Amino acid sequence: MLTYERKSVNTLPKKSNFSIIISIVPKSNLENIRHSLAHLLAAAVLKKFPDAKLGIGPTIENGFYYDFLLPRSLSPEDLKEFEKTMRQTIKERWVFSGKKVTADEAKNLFQNQPFKLDLIKEFIEEKKQLTVYSTCPPKTYNLKPITCFIDLCRGGHVKNTGEINSDAFKLTEIAAAYWHGDENKPQLQRIYGVAFKNKKELEAYLEMEEEAKKRDHRKLGQDLELFTFAEEVGPGLPLWLPKGTIVRDELEAWAKEVETAAGYQRVVTPHITKEDLYKISGHIPYYTDDMYSPMNIENEKYYLKPMNCPHHHMIYKSRTRSYRELPLRLTEYGQLYRYERSGTLHGLFRVRGFCQNDAHIYVAEKDVVDEFARVMDMHRYYYKKLGIKNFKVKLGIRDPKNLRKKYHGDDKMWAKAEKLTRAGLKKARVKYSEDVGGAAHYGPKGDVIIESVIGKEYAIGTIQIDLFMPTRFNLSFINERGEKERPVIIHRAPLGSHERMVGFLLEHFAGDFPTWLSPVQVRIAPVSVKSAAYARKLLELFKEKGLRADLASESETLGKNIRQAEMEKIPYVVVVGEKEMQDKNLSVRLRHKKENVKMTIEDFLKKITEEIKERRM
Amino acid sequence: MLTYERKSVNTLPKKSNFSIIISIVPKSNLENIRHSLAHLLAAAVLKKFPDAKLGIGPTIENGFYYDFLLPRSLSPEDLKEFEKTMRQTIKERWVFSGKKVTADEAKNLFQNQPFKLDLIKEFIEEKKQLTVYSTCPPKTYNLKPITCFIDLCRGGHVKNTGEINSDAFKLTEIAAAYWHGDENKPQLQRIYGVAFKNKKELEAYLEMEEEAKKRDHRKLGQDLELFTFAEEVGPGLPLWLPKGTIVRDELEAWAKEVETAAGYQRVVTPHITKEDLYKISGHIPYYTDDMYSPMNIENEKYYLKPMNCPHHHMIYKSRTRSYRELPLRLTEYGQLYRYERSGTLHGLFRVRGFCQNDAHIYVAEKDVVDEFARVMDMHRYYYKKLGIKNFKVKLGIRDPKNLRKKYHGDDKMWAKAEKLTRAGLKKARVKYSEDVGGAAHYGPKGDVIIESVIGKEYAIGTIQIDLFMPTRFNLSFINERGEKERPVIIHRAPLGSHERMVGFLLEHFAGDFPTWLSPVQVRIAPVSVKSAAYARKLLELFKEKGLRADLASESETLGKNIRQAEMEKIPYVVVVGEKEMQDKNLSVRLRHKKENVKMTIEDFLKKITEEIKERRM
Repeated sequence: MLTYERKSVNTLPKKSNFSIIISIVPKSNLENIRHSLAHLLAAAVLKKFPDAKLGIGPTIENGFYYDFLLPRSLSPEDLKEFEKTMRQTIKERWVFSGKKVTADEAKNLFQNQPFKLDLIKEFIEEKKQLTVYSTCPPKTYNLKPITCFIDLCRGGHVKNTGEINSDAFKLTEIAAAYWHGDENKPQLQRIYGVAFKNKKELEAYLEMEEEAKKRDHRKLGQDLELFTFAEEVGPGLPLWLPKGTIVRDELEAWAKEVETAAGYQRVVTPHITKEDLYKISGHIPYYTDDMYSPMNIENEKYYLKPMNCPHHHMIYKSRTRSYRELPLRLTEYGQLYRYERSGTLHGLFRVRGFCQNDAHIYVAEKDVVDEFARVMDMHRYYYKKLGIKNFKVKLGIRDPKNLRKKYHGDDKMWAKAEKLTRAGLKKARVKYSEDVGGAAHYGPKGDVIIESVIGKEYAIGTIQIDLFMPTRFNLSFINERGEKERPVIIHRAPLGSHERMVGFLLEHFAGDFPTWLSPVQVRIAPVSVKSAAYARKLLELFKEKGLRADLASESETLGKNIRQAEMEKIPYVVVVGEKEMQDKNLSVRLRHKKENVKMTIEDFLKKITEEIKERRM
Repeated sequence: MLTYERKSVNTLPKKSNFSIIISIVPKSNLENIRHSLAHLLAAAVLKKFPDAKLGIGPTIENGFYYDFLLPRSLSPEDLKEFEKTMRQTIKERWVFSGKKVTADEAKNLFQNQPFKLDLIKEFIEEKKQLTVYSTCPPKTYNLKPITCFIDLCRGGHVKNTGEINSDAFKLTEIAAAYWHGDENKPQLQRIYGVAFKNKKELEAYLEMEEEAKKRDHRKLGQDLELFTFAEEVGPGLPLWLPKGTIVRDELEAWAKEVETAAGYQRVVTPHITKEDLYKISGHIPYYTDDMYSPMNIENEKYYLKPMNCPHHHMIYKSRTRSYRELPLRLTEYGQLYRYERSGTLHGLFRVRGFCQNDAHIYVAEKDVVDEFARVMDMHRYYYKKLGIKNFKVKLGIRDPKNLRKKYHGDDKMWAKAEKLTRAGLKKARVKYSEDVGGAAHYGPKGDVIIESVIGKEYAIGTIQIDLFMPTRFNLSFINERGEKERPVIIHRAPLGSHERMVGFLLEHFAGDFPTWLSPVQVRIAPVSVKSAAYARKLLELFKEKGLRADLASESETLGKNIRQAEMEKIPYVVVVGEKEMQDKNLSVRLRHKKENVKMTIEDFLKKITEEIKERRM
């Protein structure tokens, strides 16, 4: 079962992620620095706005944020002022120290902070120990304790602010956020910051962010006419334009080729399904919040499918299976629908419907580690072809504090699933880190993270070894000894969803798709009307050879046509004038190159068709 | 806008089709014969069961039916008895005659027939003239009028039963049907009959039906492992197994190739959509009964899409269009969901979700007839390739009695749309008949009917010229003179839906798909274990060449493996023994042939790859 990764870069954590600041003690020093900076930010804001009401201030990837209710809207100037105050505090080497407090003490300390009182109430309900952290000037300054900043916090800080490099952080953004992510609660102002070990790292990050902004897939996707959204259709529901559909189709054709060669079998399953199926799978009730409200058909509830797995299990079950058929690899570019709050939607990265490169592999337990490694090899193959230098897995395991609430209760099964997954990752030589609390209710979950050429990370899919669903669906096969045996399931989606993958590729390539993915591969630009007929002949020839070719506008100048092709990021422009007509050569201009290259028609066709066939970068 | 043809062969008309018997006067003599036979059947039933309560008795394709409430369940023996009575009546040359009656007269005549009283009530509400028809023995018999059979009927009969060939009809089936198709009303017994001009035609039809039964796609689809249904998923929602998915994929790849060559551009649109879009298109309220109940997302209603058109119109609208782009042909194998009562579901022919070979062509009015003819040429091309000898169009036009209720009110627009459609059909040299009342609310609708090799007809898709939606969506393009102009839309789906097309092809080919559509194209059967390694080598070679090849079971005899391949309807079995290993020849057995053919590996590969590439039958 592949859960669509929620914490993509640059998207806001959901309400449940709030637990980060109270349940996870950051381990690395950089985490401590970022967490400490969040406190310094709150102190700086309180200094300027003594009546500010404080929300939460967790660390996030690359930095931190803090939410505030303030008497007025913040401006970029305010951020500069806060940075200045924070740098002063750093210089003064303020000291962090924490202590346990009782509920009454906490309520007293935060009597003017309604959001903190909310949190205290929740802690009491959950019977959790309350702790507070103070940030105070060092004693040498001999100031009164009233100047300390005190926050409700589980800790994870530097000892004193002297450990923080004051040149290595920056407040980057002001955004709006509802308290507890709930649109019925007050809207707060969220200040984002980033922090690194040193100035060089900060600058590299800011540069990457600057570059990333230029590569924003939402703008590129619009400029290149790949997809669009319409108010009348609804948010988070992309309409794929002809050029975007070509990119999707090419990715799917590639997956089909690679998967067929690897023994996968494609299937197609319906998008709506009776609730019965989701009761068997446990999506009802565990996943219901992420699903759309049911439709009523002849007094039965039907749901839009949020995952393909249950349907694939039903196909597996449609007849008796033999060990000879295993590993049975069922694959589907399956269309899934999951509820996302409109506020969290983000271009193609967070949508309400997406088409996933899904597969479920049914395999004997003795073979699951080998098969897992084969699956990771397929990931590696895809990513290498796409010029992705790094990928890694974040292995979501159970949060030991939440054992019975969020996860199935068979500890032995958990231990075995984790062991098998780690063995598979080791065998496949894949880098991985652990994510406590990141497991699914039915087992450990590996999030696959890929890195673009500019070093930005994207959660693209997940990989999982699942021992739980085979029991829920009562799956079996007849083994070599003629006995019924329970298979293990591997869930995987190396190319993620079309939505996220096309978004990633746009940012990764800055829109300069390799030729095989380019919606238009060759544009033919006649020098003048004299060569227009010849250009049309060439067009026919190129199309016959299976190229996606078109003609430049006959009413524009060559220069303008070449600039237009550059803007459309077309890999090849073939310029034809009278000279080219006579000597039957082509004058070929490569994308972003200033010079044309002369080559024969045959050579050009050989070069480009090979490049496409081999899916070269 | 393509409405999925509801009246497939062998499926029951819906409630609305009831209007057939009261609003359409059958024209052909055969129609009159069938209609008359329905009366004779009712008379025969009344003779045996004097307390029978009569429902309706319309003509249908190839025959007629009549519904009855009876004191007991009918058996095939009863049908024989009714046939005998009917033949006697035919022999006696009973006479039909009709007359207008008042409401009171009608109520009096049918005082013991509650269903007829229902109909009379409806007639009165709709202010329609009531007519009754009597069927009486000729005067020469000098019997009392009490022996006549009298029915509430609009007419359309033979003059006397002597016109009916008593060897040319047969009562074929007993089925259950709710009064008015409403499951809250009494369940009646429906008797189906068929009738033709002569005995020869009847026998040919019965023979075709017998053959059709053998070809039933539901059984073939299961035997060949193409698709399955699961109770937990829901009725009418097929799960496509790997082999069925190959057939779908091949059809879609073909469509992509043909459509791309014809200048179509593929798009992908979401499956759920805000109600706003369907209000613009008029699906709400006109089509709501065929749609699933809405889902609630953040206080907005979202519907599963029943048609792709509105989404394509939104893509058309996503930017300004120029005459240079027209005809703009947007195509999508689009997944649609429509409500069908569970009782009407039928294998792949009537499902709740289907994937349609849809396209919408936006064209200037001056070019629409030419484009329409091009579209029909594409239909012709597809059907010829598939070995379909005949296809025709049933042109649905407005029912003049229902002008303002079911259709938009712009009479000029209707006249123009009809004129253009007829001109297109004429230009394309397509046979067509008229279907009064078969129009959509927004315009005339052409149902495309194809005929299988055994002569059975299937409604596969529709073709329409639409002047209405361009106004609803306010579509425009900039014409040659720089002015805004309204385009015309052509809706078309030559390959219908995957569901119906695969069902049709199964019955058309009796499961013997041509090689390009066959899930397994070549099976390699080693004569003994000695040639097993060579067989595996050949398998690799065949797969490299892009063939879908597999190996026969090594634990079975050659004879059994060949029988197995026959059962799976695999086009080629390549038998390899020691002899073949030595002389590097292949022994190739064609499907349903008793003899093997010797050929070199090269010749075989050339033959089969060409056959596939050219999609030969």
